Amino acid sequence: MNTLSLPSLQAEYAAVLARGLSLDMSRGKPATPQLDLSDGIQTPLTDFRDKTGFDVRNYGKPDGIEDIRDIFADLLDIPPGDILIGGSSSLNMMYDTVARHMSFGATPTSVPWSKMSGTPKFICPAPGYDRHFAICEAFGIEMVIVGIDDNGPDMDAVESAVADPNVVGMWIVPVYSNPTGCVYSEDTIRRLANLRPANGDFRILCDNAYAVHHLYDADSTPNLHGEAARAGNSEMVYTFFSTSKITYCGGGVAMVASGQGNVAYTRAITARQTICNDKVNQLRHARYLGSAERLREHMTRHADLLRPKFEAVLSVLEGQLAPHGIGKWTRPRGGYFISLDLPHGTAKRTHQLAAAAGVTLTPAGASFPYGVDPCDSNLRIAPSFPTVEENITAAEVLCLCAKIAFAEGHTD
Amino acid sequence: MNTLSLPSLQAEYAAVLARGLSLDMSRGKPATPQLDLSDGIQTPLTDFRDKTGFDVRNYGKPDGIEDIRDIFADLLDIPPGDILIGGSSSLNMMYDTVARHMSFGATPTSVPWSKMSGTPKFICPAPGYDRHFAICEAFGIEMVIVGIDDNGPDMDAVESAVADPNVVGMWIVPVYSNPTGCVYSEDTIRRLANLRPANGDFRILCDNAYAVHHLYDADSTPNLHGEAARAGNSEMVYTFFSTSKITYCGGGVAMVASGQGNVAYTRAITARQTICNDKVNQLRHARYLGSAERLREHMTRHADLLRPKFEAVLSVLEGQLAPHGIGKWTRPRGGYFISLDLPHGTAKRTHQLAAAAGVTLTPAGASFPYGVDPCDSNLRIAPSFPTVEENITAAEVLCLCAKIAFAEGHTD
Repeated sequence: MNTLSLPSLQAEYAAVLARGLSLDMSRGKPATPQLDLSDGIQTPLTDFRDKTGFDVRNYGKPDGIEDIRDIFADLLDIPPGDILIGGSSSLNMMYDTVARHMSFGATPTSVPWSKMSGTPKFICPAPGYDRHFAICEAFGIEMVIVGIDDNGPDMDAVESAVADPNVVGMWIVPVYSNPTGCVYSEDTIRRLANLRPANGDFRILCDNAYAVHHLYDADSTPNLHGEAARAGNSEMVYTFFSTSKITYCGGGVAMVASGQGNVAYTRAITARQTICNDKVNQLRHARYLGSAERLREHMTRHADLLRPKFEAVLSVLEGQLAPHGIGKWTRPRGGYFISLDLPHGTAKRTHQLAAAAGVTLTPAGASFPYGVDPCDSNLRIAPSFPTVEENITAAEVLCLCAKIAFAEGHTD
Repeated sequence: MNTLSLPSLQAEYAAVLARGLSLDMSRGKPATPQLDLSDGIQTPLTDFRDKTGFDVRNYGKPDGIEDIRDIFADLLDIPPGDILIGGSSSLNMMYDTVARHMSFGATPTSVPWSKMSGTPKFICPAPGYDRHFAICEAFGIEMVIVGIDDNGPDMDAVESAVADPNVVGMWIVPVYSNPTGCVYSEDTIRRLANLRPANGDFRILCDNAYAVHHLYDADSTPNLHGEAARAGNSEMVYTFFSTSKITYCGGGVAMVASGQGNVAYTRAITARQTICNDKVNQLRHARYLGSAERLREHMTRHADLLRPKFEAVLSVLEGQLAPHGIGKWTRPRGGYFISLDLPHGTAKRTHQLAAAAGVTLTPAGASFPYGVDPCDSNLRIAPSFPTVEENITAAEVLCLCAKIAFAEGHTD
């Protein structure tokens, strides 16, 4: 293993500072060429009727139009009747789902989570998605951290946690998990589907944001919606999906799926919330995407743009960190992130050094509940927005900063 | 005054039944020719950058883009910085505002409405909008009814009601009120702006849905947002608006405006809810609508389509009911509704007879909190969707049913 010389690393860093870089690897944003892939969605609608003959420009159809619902159903292998189409943001649908449970409870006869005798708790596999954790924090839901590896969450810990009647929910990202990129194993999905929680209103909020966002051949895992139904647990799972990283970010179409009881209950409450969502955008998407098969083809064009960026970053990590035995990282086959575990106690320092050198990363700790990484080890890398060349530069700076942070810790 | 013969009215009704009509005057839905007015919104976007150069297809700008915000600001005479752009539904923004106040309180240091020692109460001018009342009902907010006349709500009653510290809010539709069509007088607006409620977190939710929906020359009234600011009450008012009845229903752009404290607080909470709203639709609208002035021109084309329908219905009411001294009705100069007050105790019966004859009206009582019209007198007529000829037929049937209901009550 090569040794590191702090003075020579610092000299290298000074040279980087002098370059005045400004590179952003902080969020999972598609790059402009990816956005250009969906230009066809601009084709003017001339026939405004959905497949049932309904004029999408007028009020009505709060569940959304069949045209887009049926494509999602086919794509995700979920019965169309289990799906409600929303606005443009699946995160908004997740927030609303938690808000509804807080105010009104999980079923028409349930105690609202905000009125429980104890504090409601959510199981949060970590590292995970900061915006999931922010929703829990907003509503005062206590987060119970469980570990996550290449097979998904630590299921022994999950099965043990659901014995607590105050545990009312769990966040998961089963396909290309944010940020580790892992795809939950068949065994993990089956154990999730067969949970028998002490709290009968326990709900898994399954954020399937990256269901079709493959970088290579499709990785597959059983569909939790279907597995839960087979296990007699269809009301335990809400599945969320959107086209934000398929067509336009924040300008796509979002959906939620669940069992028939949850669908009816959600529909009844959201009827107070809005008359209908944007069906013009739904029809535009349905006409452009065409079918599940054409949507999958469309995703291969995203993959062609993203793959070289992931490979470039991984190659720099391999070349710059591996020889020194510093850190380990995931090699995701889809999704938007690479998760980097640095030597304990060096993630924040690495982030700080990189920021000062003009390379923005998601704040260290952001992937953990309350923003606290107990080991100060994890950084999330988002290679999607910068070009390949910028990714290489940014990754080189990141590696340099990681080496400095490591060397500093060994020269005190 | 002409007398009514029940047997001859019944014979007339039997003939109507035989026609097998199917006409809908129940909701304020634009007709297809109105929707066609906005075909230009289909023009493909080729430049996706907003006026600041931001690519609207990507994540970001949770407040919305300046392009549409500035048009709304000019149109409603509200400072741009007081406006947050939302999704497509202003009703959804109203629901969210109430939901936020229930869960988190009116300010960062307030007691959430759901945690108050007493039941939170809203002042509800009635007849009013059923969907406002449904939001109160969903959250268990008690509704305090005040009357409304051509000048707006009974302000003596309002000023007296806000002395109750459990009164936390009030719904208003200041321009072309739903369903009476009245425009609040200057005096009403000034008294609203100068309220000094016992509860410092009292909020007026001002649904300005029909702000520019004139049938004739624009009726004007002072802008409550501005009046409240001048009265040192800028945080007391949330104003909502959308383009649903300007471009596409449920497919337009919605907004909320308030004082700077509320804007900052709303922004902070909604940051947990969504990354951003659909900016592609915002840009599409901004490019198509162009400016406040062009938007006002666009509204004259809606008026040209709507005016003959309102006039046709009013002419039938005048011809069929006035000679018998039955009922009184509003003659709105804008908005979407005519409000008909029938002799007490005959609204439900009239609705039932009309429904059986194939003429659907909003259920009697719907315009009152809890769906209960204490006088069983009011019916809301929505002339927008049927053609002029259909409106005439429907209004004739309605008048016949009203006469039967009246005659029945006088022949027991």
